[in-house]
Amino acid sequence: MTYFRDNIEQMAGYTPGFQPKEADVVKLNTNENPYPPSPKVLEALQALAPEAMRRYPDPVGQAFREKAAKLHGLSADSILCCNGGDDLLTLVFRAFCDEARPVAYPVPTYTLYAVLAKIQNCATAEVPFSGEQCGLPDQLAQVGAPLTIVCNPNAPTGTLIQPEKLFDLAKQVKGILLIDEAYGDFANTNCLDLVRQLDNVIILRSLSKGYSLAGIRFGYAMAHPDLVSGLLKVKDSYNVDVLTLAAATAAIEDQDHFEANVAKIKAARTTLTQDLRNLGLHVQDSHSNFVLAQSPDFPANDLHKQLANQRIFVRYFNVPELMDKIRITVGTTEQNDTLVQAIKQILAK
Amino acid sequence: MTYFRDNIEQMAGYTPGFQPKEADVVKLNTNENPYPPSPKVLEALQALAPEAMRRYPDPVGQAFREKAAKLHGLSADSILCCNGGDDLLTLVFRAFCDEARPVAYPVPTYTLYAVLAKIQNCATAEVPFSGEQCGLPDQLAQVGAPLTIVCNPNAPTGTLIQPEKLFDLAKQVKGILLIDEAYGDFANTNCLDLVRQLDNVIILRSLSKGYSLAGIRFGYAMAHPDLVSGLLKVKDSYNVDVLTLAAATAAIEDQDHFEANVAKIKAARTTLTQDLRNLGLHVQDSHSNFVLAQSPDFPANDLHKQLANQRIFVRYFNVPELMDKIRITVGTTEQNDTLVQAIKQILAK
Repeated sequence: MTYFRDNIEQMAGYTPGFQPKEADVVKLNTNENPYPPSPKVLEALQALAPEAMRRYPDPVGQAFREKAAKLHGLSADSILCCNGGDDLLTLVFRAFCDEARPVAYPVPTYTLYAVLAKIQNCATAEVPFSGEQCGLPDQLAQVGAPLTIVCNPNAPTGTLIQPEKLFDLAKQVKGILLIDEAYGDFANTNCLDLVRQLDNVIILRSLSKGYSLAGIRFGYAMAHPDLVSGLLKVKDSYNVDVLTLAAATAAIEDQDHFEANVAKIKAARTTLTQDLRNLGLHVQDSHSNFVLAQSPDFPANDLHKQLANQRIFVRYFNVPELMDKIRITVGTTEQNDTLVQAIKQILAK
Repeated sequence: MTYFRDNIEQMAGYTPGFQPKEADVVKLNTNENPYPPSPKVLEALQALAPEAMRRYPDPVGQAFREKAAKLHGLSADSILCCNGGDDLLTLVFRAFCDEARPVAYPVPTYTLYAVLAKIQNCATAEVPFSGEQCGLPDQLAQVGAPLTIVCNPNAPTGTLIQPEKLFDLAKQVKGILLIDEAYGDFANTNCLDLVRQLDNVIILRSLSKGYSLAGIRFGYAMAHPDLVSGLLKVKDSYNVDVLTLAAATAAIEDQDHFEANVAKIKAARTTLTQDLRNLGLHVQDSHSNFVLAQSPDFPANDLHKQLANQRIFVRYFNVPELMDKIRITVGTTEQNDTLVQAIKQILAK
């Protein structure tokens, strides 16, 4: 006998990547940024009085909204503050999907979408990406789903769909198109323009990657004010705490730090991609802060385990389309070199 | 045309209490604690390295779980860390309720329950509390709901049901009994023992009230490990950030600060209750950090507005069973005196 709904009882939860407690490891498994956040973040936190912790936070995070609106050229009521990008994804499933309203998305992609669909008990239309370069499948719009999600750049492939194609998709779908740009900081283009032109597009952004703030949990949506207004009804009143709001607002103001940080990752990504190719691995060009690498002959799961034995952590997904690959977060130059040398030795055995 | 589910489109969101930005007001409207949190909280935050913000937090908050388990005499896997008590309420609706699985609760109570039911599109059985002292209604168990919620002490009445009665209720209900002890810090008894004896009871606790930490968003559940395990599948992986986890863990360790803080509120509550009664207001004994006061002849909404004009904020609920009352958070002795004098002058006009 269970007290839970059947769909909850029968499902497995999302498995987050392994989080070793030790600091002295090469942690390239959960796409964290290897560089520290802006020093302005620490200053903003230290400037917070205990009084601020005693009181409820601003329910909508207006200070952040105004900074983000200015940065992106939108109105403040086009911005929705969330407790990490996952909070926004959860909200969107609860707002648009149910047993009669399915979700559609191309696969392979962020596996949380399927988990959230199970929790919301909605059907999923999983349409395989087209070809090696993960093109947008034509069938996606034909599903007619109330919610379509495209992770762009996609995880865990690192591939990018051009905004024009997503504009066409948004015009074709009958419901909402959520473009998950959690990794958008590392691409050379983005879909922000679509929010200005269409009333059914939601862009997801995160401060976890480009801003080095995975620990504080902050993500935000950009969408037509009517969509933001509806999502505000669904979110918890005080979903983002006063510390995170202060940190996020300080982080987004320091664009110099952000841009320098992202530039370092992009440069390291180029080197890492080339180094892995030189070892004979197959690596697609990545538009994200990770690369997906395939060893033509060495089993990916063994490679992943042997690296872990050396306290070098990468991500392995035990699903059919990914089981011959490992996903490697772009680390510091030093971390990447350590990884490349370790792979070289493992392959040479 | 709307993109939202019908239930979302048609509902109104929860209205959080007014949050004035100014510090120089008498803010007695959202049940915040007037005293600062433990200094250990600030120390814990200041000791956090930027490295901690860069990395994802511990998904389950094990450090907090272990401290809370020790404090309450439970195992760590009986504890679930949440992004405020509201996060736990949201989880519980998603885990146990749907169109075929209603929720039952006595009214009047915390109005978020009804909002979450609308979002989850589940039916509600709202059973009036029995009599002036808000006794537990016999009909509550008869509903046979998969989820029953009792806010205890109740908001906004401040009344308390004895644990024995809730033990009996838990044995009678067919599903889960969630006892919302968000205000439990200010009562002389609680339902912790029920978690040790029954597998269908969830206790909600919050650090917003007794620990003076409404701004950091931290609540937790205590329940049978099987229930915690199921709820872990539903929650966002990283629902509590690293700053909040550090603050919450430090706060719960400093029981001396907590107990002194709560003792001050209880003493001030006694004085405030008597002072309001001396002005002719009807005030029930409260087991919480607020009192519900009724003026026999002066309209409550006018009283609320005239106080607001003097920058003294109390809470008014425009619903039939509460429209002749105002809810007043217990503030500092000075704040309470300011309020009492202001009410005295308004009533004398």
